[in-house]
Amino acid sequence: MAVEGRVRTEDHGRVRVLTFDRPGRANAFDAALYRAAAAGLTGADLDDGVGAVVLTGAGRTFTAGTDLAEMADTADAGPGPVDRTTPGAAGDRPEHPFDAFLDAVVGFGKPLLAAVNGAGVGLGLTLLAHCDLVLVSENARLKAPFTQMGVVPEAASSYLLPRRMGDQRAAEALLTSGWISAEDAVASGLALRKYAPDDLLPEAVALAQAIAAHPAGSVRATKALLTASRRDAVSEARRREGAAFADILRSPAMGNAIRNHLAGEKGAS
Amino acid sequence: MAVEGRVRTEDHGRVRVLTFDRPGRANAFDAALYRAAAAGLTGADLDDGVGAVVLTGAGRTFTAGTDLAEMADTADAGPGPVDRTTPGAAGDRPEHPFDAFLDAVVGFGKPLLAAVNGAGVGLGLTLLAHCDLVLVSENARLKAPFTQMGVVPEAASSYLLPRRMGDQRAAEALLTSGWISAEDAVASGLALRKYAPDDLLPEAVALAQAIAAHPAGSVRATKALLTASRRDAVSEARRREGAAFADILRSPAMGNAIRNHLAGEKGAS
Amino acid sequence: MAVEGRVRTEDHGRVRVLTFDRPGRANAFDAALYRAAAAGLTGADLDDGVGAVVLTGAGRTFTAGTDLAEMADTADAGPGPVDRTTPGAAGDRPEHPFDAFLDAVVGFGKPLLAAVNGAGVGLGLTLLAHCDLVLVSENARLKAPFTQMGVVPEAASSYLLPRRMGDQRAAEALLTSGWISAEDAVASGLALRKYAPDDLLPEAVALAQAIAAHPAGSVRATKALLTASRRDAVSEARRREGAAFADILRSPAMGNAIRNHLAGEKGAS
Repeated sequence: MAVEGRVRTEDHGRVRVLTFDRPGRANAFDAALYRAAAAGLTGADLDDGVGAVVLTGAGRTFTAGTDLAEMADTADAGPGPVDRTTPGAAGDRPEHPFDAFLDAVVGFGKPLLAAVNGAGVGLGLTLLAHCDLVLVSENARLKAPFTQMGVVPEAASSYLLPRRMGDQRAAEALLTSGWISAEDAVASGLALRKYAPDDLLPEAVALAQAIAAHPAGSVRATKALLTASRRDAVSEARRREGAAFADILRSPAMGNAIRNHLAGEKGAS
Repeated sequence: MAVEGRVRTEDHGRVRVLTFDRPGRANAFDAALYRAAAAGLTGADLDDGVGAVVLTGAGRTFTAGTDLAEMADTADAGPGPVDRTTPGAAGDRPEHPFDAFLDAVVGFGKPLLAAVNGAGVGLGLTLLAHCDLVLVSENARLKAPFTQMGVVPEAASSYLLPRRMGDQRAAEALLTSGWISAEDAVASGLALRKYAPDDLLPEAVALAQAIAAHPAGSVRATKALLTASRRDAVSEARRREGAAFADILRSPAMGNAIRNHLAGEKGAS
Repeated sequence: MAVEGRVRTEDHGRVRVLTFDRPGRANAFDAALYRAAAAGLTGADLDDGVGAVVLTGAGRTFTAGTDLAEMADTADAGPGPVDRTTPGAAGDRPEHPFDAFLDAVVGFGKPLLAAVNGAGVGLGLTLLAHCDLVLVSENARLKAPFTQMGVVPEAASSYLLPRRMGDQRAAEALLTSGWISAEDAVASGLALRKYAPDDLLPEAVALAQAIAAHPAGSVRATKALLTASRRDAVSEARRREGAAFADILRSPAMGNAIRNHLAGEKGAS
């Protein structure tokens, strides 16, 4: 399957819908999906015909997050979802696809919406904290299983989830690794509104179209102003999370736990 | 009409009510109203008999924000509501009345309340994010029409509205330019509580009096501590917004759109 | 009574419950309770058998905060609950027990929960803003009476309460010195959930156990990441609050008011 095959692209007027499309694996992000999604965002940013983007998932899942089976295969190559932009951390190794995708999300210059059509795990939750507007299906549910896996929060979620959900709801989500229902996602501020499954994508496209109808330069400048005051804190959180993940990997107990977990995933796949 | 005529002043014990009073123009801020409101705040700050201030509007509107017809008249004089305190931005030109008013709001040393008695547009919404406590009438509604007008957020609203309303509610308000109901204002945190129209001002005065009954030095120090942690971010946001507004004005397409919009406003007035 | 007698310690598996136990004085913090609570936290942090800590109060009160009668006795020794860690502020005087306790709270490396079993006043409220997760009894109520006492917010509450409760709810609490009900504590984000009095402690222990069941290194790193982005702002707020408190004490009018207030407390005790 070509890289591009991992993400479906569909335009509704000035709104582009990018659909994570790997249903046999619950839309889990392997390197190909990371690269396809990053390319989809970069292309939409450069296309003057696109005024806003909606991210969604194919089938009944939003995304299961990073593909742990693939991660186990490539574990020898490095620590995985760690911020390669950390000064001095990466040397001359190529940027990990996780970071390439996250850089594309963080740097995206147009309004970015999410239509969360089902379960979102790991990056399926932490990605949402970077989206300007998040709509969820009534049967969506979200989970950040980092403590369960023995690792640490990723994608600046240790900074952005407290900002989006409040300190305590974020602490509960990240410390317990528990599920968040669609209702709680809305009540906490992680999502803006919830809809019946069939209404979700049409509502997200309509909201994006209402924004894309305004002058593009004004919309882009407004998005830039909204993100400017958190940009440095997001970079700093990614750096801290990357350092903490590297520390965990170096700890013998933790490293073994993760390696066993990944080996189990690999065996099960 | 004298400058002072634009703002009515009324004391209830140690609480001063300042009423934007230009009903023929929906209490829109022309230069005279900006200056009168700034002078009203400065006077209240210096008056030991005043413990707290309530801002409200005459008639059935809170304020329509900056008077666009006047803005069109003076368009040749400069870019309008841009932060003149930006280092190097203003040179030796006098400070714009918008900035003089906003400086008086940001620097006000006593508790500042708003009793939002009706529609608030533009500054009628963004001003609220600087008030310590905001009470709204059940028939109030609020709108930040910056993308609709092809411009950018003002008055540090790109920083303060996410802080007050959450990232997503603020993004929706600023990107769509849609109306916010009184109910949504309370649900989002933009307002503290809503009241029947006749109860609004008495409730606001009573709340202000409860605060003004405490030792003045303690109240002033508490207000200073509450604002201290956001002061630098507010200045930085005003600077960024001013730069973005100047960029928009320099862009040929945007400049034309704004000039046409303002010409239409002027013709209609 | 020995210092240790002020705090009861009880382990439920990997969860340690520390109970403020001075019921004759509504669990008010005298120097002995401050020191015992600080020692309890430090001990729990160093004990590998402890995965999380729950703070609660004996009897029907959470804590009445700083013991004002004792504070009056020692008023000549210095200004009381002021941050002694301020560079240049303390010289070679020993750290005040208030600050020793607060330092132990701020630096605590494991998840810290509160089970608020009744009224919390002063530090009984401001302490909660440092806890990762706060559960309240339905009959809990909270109050920050700093303006009523003519002083200023403490324990970084001027920064943390706006962050936890939103700018306006925090401003109302700190400026009016009014009571916050259990229901409003939950609605504002100051507490996560409320429970019937008999269910409170079991629910808090169960939540703490769910967290403590995860790998300890991962949980500790997650807590560190969650607090990292607010650590500097907390220190800065404590410093500002300490300076403001010293200013208030130096003001003749305020100093007299506080001395009279404390003298009255002392006479009444």
